[in-house]
Amino acid sequence: MAKINDVLSVLEEKSKKLDPIILSCFEGREESDVLYKASRHLIEAGGKRIRPSLTILSCLALGGNEEEVLPVAAAFELIHTFTLIHDDIMDDDDFRRGLPTVHKQWDVPTAILSGDTLFALAFELVSSSNLIETQLSREILNIIAKTAVIICEGQTMDLEFEKRWDVKENEYLEMIEKKTASLLSASAMAGSIVARGSEEQVKRIANYGRYLGIAFQIKDDLLGILGEKSELGKPVGSDVEQGKKNLIILHALQNCNEEDKEFLLNRLGKDVPDHELNKIIGILENTRSIEYAEKKARDLVDMAKRCINALPKSETQEILLKLADFVVERKF
Amino acid sequence: MAKINDVLSVLEEKSKKLDPIILSCFEGREESDVLYKASRHLIEAGGKRIRPSLTILSCLALGGNEEEVLPVAAAFELIHTFTLIHDDIMDDDDFRRGLPTVHKQWDVPTAILSGDTLFALAFELVSSSNLIETQLSREILNIIAKTAVIICEGQTMDLEFEKRWDVKENEYLEMIEKKTASLLSASAMAGSIVARGSEEQVKRIANYGRYLGIAFQIKDDLLGILGEKSELGKPVGSDVEQGKKNLIILHALQNCNEEDKEFLLNRLGKDVPDHELNKIIGILENTRSIEYAEKKARDLVDMAKRCINALPKSETQEILLKLADFVVERKF
Repeated sequence: MAKINDVLSVLEEKSKKLDPIILSCFEGREESDVLYKASRHLIEAGGKRIRPSLTILSCLALGGNEEEVLPVAAAFELIHTFTLIHDDIMDDDDFRRGLPTVHKQWDVPTAILSGDTLFALAFELVSSSNLIETQLSREILNIIAKTAVIICEGQTMDLEFEKRWDVKENEYLEMIEKKTASLLSASAMAGSIVARGSEEQVKRIANYGRYLGIAFQIKDDLLGILGEKSELGKPVGSDVEQGKKNLIILHALQNCNEEDKEFLLNRLGKDVPDHELNKIIGILENTRSIEYAEKKARDLVDMAKRCINALPKSETQEILLKLADFVVERKF
Repeated sequence: MAKINDVLSVLEEKSKKLDPIILSCFEGREESDVLYKASRHLIEAGGKRIRPSLTILSCLALGGNEEEVLPVAAAFELIHTFTLIHDDIMDDDDFRRGLPTVHKQWDVPTAILSGDTLFALAFELVSSSNLIETQLSREILNIIAKTAVIICEGQTMDLEFEKRWDVKENEYLEMIEKKTASLLSASAMAGSIVARGSEEQVKRIANYGRYLGIAFQIKDDLLGILGEKSELGKPVGSDVEQGKKNLIILHALQNCNEEDKEFLLNRLGKDVPDHELNKIIGILENTRSIEYAEKKARDLVDMAKRCINALPKSETQEILLKLADFVVERKF
């Protein structure tokens, strides 16, 4: 618990430095303009700022300069928010960060344009900053562009999987690596580049972010089944009711008997009464799918930590190690 | 007519060099992947390639290198196509370049992702090219990012105008400057930057693109009223039936009597029978709105040409002058 609080206080401290930079992108643009209001909506709604914090911490861990890395870090939060806004349209989600999603608060055109605007602002921020050397700036812009393409590939896979019942675990892992882990990896990597890390160090930091990102998504999957997500408490099994094919459900489908498989497939995406929910949990227990996912997330976190262990010892290194544990220990 | 054919043959020649670069962005990515098929859909459907041709011609006019500028030019076509795909979703248009729009051929999520992918690929292309000096690359990435934000502002204004009946001419001109002219201006400007034009030359080329872009949209407005657009022939007054508030209609609304204004407002966005169409054309004749728009477009083209006249004399300079005339003389 002390560890989680340490991480949360670091994230909060970094947010305080990041948010003015993120919001500076909107300065001098019409306050009243619906486009900018909609673009700022989710940013102002909060969020843990894990991606930009990863950028800052990775930079500091290699002896880099915090002021220099801040615009790069802020750009990753802009990219993250852009993907959230567009994903919410595609999934037709109603709420995000405790507020109506952008396309619900306004409309689909405004949400498409807000996402596009944040995407463009990320590139504008990095290419405008006179704190970053030109060569590094170009390299980082290239990483952001390539990562954005990979995220689109991941989201395309996710949408395809919704229509399929035979998704294999390795396909699922590829999808979350593209959709989620690629941005965490790029966020961390960019920080190590600003710090002029060695090729070996940049690679280690990028892998750290990647393992962390996959573990992060698997932990989200577990929270979607076990129902400890959000402070209000998400109902047990909400991912089952939403028909999401997460790692736990895919593992259960591959390892249960035919009768249970049919039962499970019939319940996905439907309102499930309490007594049936218990049966579903029973199936997941029989197949040991929850332990399987927990072990997988824990293994990935250990792999992430091994990448960081080889870096120079420092306070920031300690925080990166704690951040890895935080990813699987968090209850929200 | 000879002039138009000269311009068309230049555009065709430039397309032949551009298209392999544009399509190279998709190489090595899964051929079968729906995301890349959808992303290539409108690119492969054709288009005049005016924006990337402007980039190439502006570069050549200042003595720049064609090979060096090609990836930058291609990036502008990617950005243009991205905006077309997202605009088609917002306007719920059915056809584009003679084919179903991306969201009609596939679905809205695929269209959102295809647009996002093209947007990212434009940045990837420019930041990856080893033909462009790092400092220039960063400058061009910055221009593309800033222009994308301005285009989003323009599209937001366009969507807002749909709900309003009191749009003023200066508001309309601001909207088309942002939505259409900004990208033509940036396309031309980027070419002059690759050619290492002087500050004065870059400014002239950017203004050329801007005036050309506004004239281009006003000519589109005229074609939407006079019905000479597309080889199949667009019906006379199709913009009236679509309820578009284009420059001609706005001018007529501001200059006709109350009775005609009411009649016009009542017909916008509705199927208009032939005899009423004649009455509408009568109103536009009374207010001299068509002449007004024609003169405005012609004046802008003259302003564009004056920007180019001051550049060093060359064959390419001649083509840029002809391209300006082409913008208002074209029948499609």
